[in-house]
Amino acid sequence: MVTVPKIIKIDHIGIAVKHLDQAVKLYQSVFRLPVGSTEINAAFAVKLCFIPVGEVQVEFLEPCDQTSPFAAFIEEKGEAIHHIAYQVDDLDAFLIELREQGVKLQSETPLPGGNGTRIVFIDPAETNHVLIELVEQPAS
Amino acid sequence: MVTVPKIIKIDHIGIAVKHLDQAVKLYQSVFRLPVGSTEINAAFAVKLCFIPVGEVQVEFLEPCDQTSPFAAFIEEKGEAIHHIAYQVDDLDAFLIELREQGVKLQSETPLPGGNGTRIVFIDPAETNHVLIELVEQPAS
Repeated sequence: MVTVPKIIKIDHIGIAVKHLDQAVKLYQSVFRLPVGSTEINAAFAVKLCFIPVGEVQVEFLEPCDQTSPFAAFIEEKGEAIHHIAYQVDDLDAFLIELREQGVKLQSETPLPGGNGTRIVFIDPAETNHVLIELVEQPAS
Repeated sequence: MVTVPKIIKIDHIGIAVKHLDQAVKLYQSVFRLPVGSTEINAAFAVKLCFIPVGEVQVEFLEPCDQTSPFAAFIEEKGEAIHHIAYQVDDLDAFLIELREQGVKLQSETPLPGGNGTRIVFIDPAETNHVLIELVEQPAS
């Protein structure tokens, strides 16, 4: 039987900002949303935190220094939404589909994401310059 | 008793694109998501459609002509995510809060949105240049 992979939901929306603390202020004080603790992702030289909103998480990303790809992103586009991550049930099955349909990816094999997830970014040239991440949660 | 207004969920994410039909192709063919029918919003000179993903809708917006504010947006920023809309339980209570905290809005009173909703846009200078819409669904 052929597995038909599915998009389950939007996992998170990543927003590149210059100052994390200032960015989350409105969400905390007016929207009264619970702001998660700040983490560092050394691979991307980025400081980040998540805010859950319903079934989605809003992720704020602040470059630690000029080596971060998020610094280059902000330099080029200003503070803006950086990516939308869709949670999928079967990342490998999606990769087969995407390759079969000739959709270009940023990496040919899944990368390790946070919390044991596996992720792949689709080449934004394929998706109206909106960077799309596919995320598979670890088997529970 | 003072009402404490709440964000319920992300209602939709609006993406400005040059060609709606081309933009939804990947969502239809690879992601196998149900693409809603195309509508015209004459006030904004924009052609739009929604794709439900879990509890969120992804909205694609294509300017009908150069008079559309979405044409100016694409001209300046290219195809990109245009806004995030948060569904709130009590828009009027939020407006009081926002004013009390000195947060600037794009319109001082709620505007009519689609399907009987009431909407307000927060001045993007307040929100790291990410345009935020607050939406209240009509009382059922």
